[in-house]
Amino acid sequence: MAMISPSRRLRRTPFSDGVEAAGVKGYTVYNHMLLPTVFRSVEEDYRHLKDAVQVWDVSCERQVEVRGPDAARLIQMLTPRDLSKMQDGQCFYVPMVDETGGMLNDPVAVKLNEDRFWISIADSDLIMWVKGLAYGFRLDVLVDEPDVSPLAIQGPKADDLAAAVFGDAVRDIRFFRYKRLEFQGRSLVVARSGYSKQGGFEIYVEGSDIGMPLWNALMEAGKSMDVHAGCPNGIERVEGGLLSYGNDMTRENTPHEAGLGRFCSTESALGCVGRDALLRVAKEGPVQQVRAIEILGTVPPCDRAWPLMDGDRQVGQVTSAANSPDFNTGVAIGMVRMTHWDTGTELDVMTPDGPRAATVYDTFWI
Amino acid sequence: MAMISPSRRLRRTPFSDGVEAAGVKGYTVYNHMLLPTVFRSVEEDYRHLKDAVQVWDVSCERQVEVRGPDAARLIQMLTPRDLSKMQDGQCFYVPMVDETGGMLNDPVAVKLNEDRFWISIADSDLIMWVKGLAYGFRLDVLVDEPDVSPLAIQGPKADDLAAAVFGDAVRDIRFFRYKRLEFQGRSLVVARSGYSKQGGFEIYVEGSDIGMPLWNALMEAGKSMDVHAGCPNGIERVEGGLLSYGNDMTRENTPHEAGLGRFCSTESALGCVGRDALLRVAKEGPVQQVRAIEILGTVPPCDRAWPLMDGDRQVGQVTSAANSPDFNTGVAIGMVRMTHWDTGTELDVMTPDGPRAATVYDTFWI
Repeated sequence: MAMISPSRRLRRTPFSDGVEAAGVKGYTVYNHMLLPTVFRSVEEDYRHLKDAVQVWDVSCERQVEVRGPDAARLIQMLTPRDLSKMQDGQCFYVPMVDETGGMLNDPVAVKLNEDRFWISIADSDLIMWVKGLAYGFRLDVLVDEPDVSPLAIQGPKADDLAAAVFGDAVRDIRFFRYKRLEFQGRSLVVARSGYSKQGGFEIYVEGSDIGMPLWNALMEAGKSMDVHAGCPNGIERVEGGLLSYGNDMTRENTPHEAGLGRFCSTESALGCVGRDALLRVAKEGPVQQVRAIEILGTVPPCDRAWPLMDGDRQVGQVTSAANSPDFNTGVAIGMVRMTHWDTGTELDVMTPDGPRAATVYDTFWI
Repeated sequence: MAMISPSRRLRRTPFSDGVEAAGVKGYTVYNHMLLPTVFRSVEEDYRHLKDAVQVWDVSCERQVEVRGPDAARLIQMLTPRDLSKMQDGQCFYVPMVDETGGMLNDPVAVKLNEDRFWISIADSDLIMWVKGLAYGFRLDVLVDEPDVSPLAIQGPKADDLAAAVFGDAVRDIRFFRYKRLEFQGRSLVVARSGYSKQGGFEIYVEGSDIGMPLWNALMEAGKSMDVHAGCPNGIERVEGGLLSYGNDMTRENTPHEAGLGRFCSTESALGCVGRDALLRVAKEGPVQQVRAIEILGTVPPCDRAWPLMDGDRQVGQVTSAANSPDFNTGVAIGMVRMTHWDTGTELDVMTPDGPRAATVYDTFWI
């Protein structure tokens, strides 16, 4: 494995000092920003995430802020999910598509009020698309990247840790809802969400200056809970079937191929620029779709798409993979042709270390 | 320094096998793709780049292809440089701006013919902006990322190496012009350009399948010239004042602040979406601008903006820095307020290792 070379372009975060002090060992780059990938080891981090509680620097989930009289109209242009009934205080997972129905991002949209939204983005410069549409359609909106950096609390003890810092009000926050709660006199959006299946919160830290104070407060409050710095875990997220934009789906894929049809209400998503294209797709149905793939034997790091083969014929590809301690098998996410996507279908996956036996499933492990 | 964690999202390139075989030691991520940063050491790579010839995997300079009847109109919307006289066979360095005049990228535009351009981009998903405008203005164009990966030949022996593979025709290619030359029956765009001051070419390798054959042919042909795998060099590019988007300028800056006024012909760039904003800026002039900054003493890696101080007052920031063996000093690029941008102005720069004496210059070292 090679080193990552520092530069201003790979942006540090408000929590980088804490991340470094906690002994970060690996990074990826996400939205031009450093995202930790490992602290003790991926396996130790995994065990600890499932047993205790972690604080994650996910600043790289940058916000695209859209505000102004046309904000709601613009947000609806971006997605086939019908947002007309979205309330203040809600977070919606929203596949975002271009005019061909190809996915541009899969962010969480946070409604602050009728005229103001945050789009908490996956790894692409979605702001450019949003600004392009706003300019092209002469919409009355401002589109910006505000100084807002999410910090996640994840793990079975997440409620206790969050309550220790923000009070017991956090316990009443429902899934994909948020409350505004106080920290050092600042009102912060605290949502029950996060990129793991272990439960927890994402705090939208508004103002870099309170980043380290909040980090330190969580570490202090969590001592008795065995809190540790963590990060999205490459094993746990595959077990849970949490997709990663750029890994498991790209601009080449529709939301239906990504298995996100349940988040599309294309018929009623009036104004969505991809609506016509997706109505066609929804009618015919996708010809390939994301599936859970079990792989026998140890798998190497998945740094490229691995072909899924039925004999000599390629019928899909694996795009994320890991070795699961809890399930004692190789776990993976792949895109599989409809001819081979039924549960139990046996295939071969061509890893750089050689072929492995693989089985297709329609549900993930967690 | 931390490791970089592999994933499909950090895309490999058609030349990755060659890069790994050559012993790459460090990477950065650029346009969601791996970009090597060091092979032997940054200092050894620097010496060798200035003395011999290197082959660089700069696949991360992805292309945004714009083709169709409205291609020229759309390209002109993106930039304040007047492209009306651009000929087939020309490459133009074109600052690209949004409606406020803020920089979105600083690519090289390659004109293939009247209806077809490649925009060879710096590190931002410019395709999203281009697609947004194309959709918003209902332009008759296709916007895509084709399978084109640039491979650079840089260094004093670049002409000899390129001639050994492509023939002596390369010697006649003028600066920022290109010719179509044959390799294994494929016609490739070969331009005299590149991200160093040592001279050389960029080959727009169309078709991943000929990536490694070309890499190997160059390595074989260059044996007598001491060819080696290389990459944009963090010392040489600062000596030469080659700006890096995301490091030295961002969306917060106009081209004039970035010192790129000579590439702006805003008055005649009819259709540029940033034209009104930039005409205002050009009239008043920028209040801060990019300058060369000499720093006394050894500088640490520049992983964040370092404040430039006049006593207690911040008057700018350093955004890239390196220790120059040839000039025996710290070399840097910074943005300095007009009150302090005159050559010879003495300031202090606040590095993470402590303050250093700094001097402002209006020309770079190479």
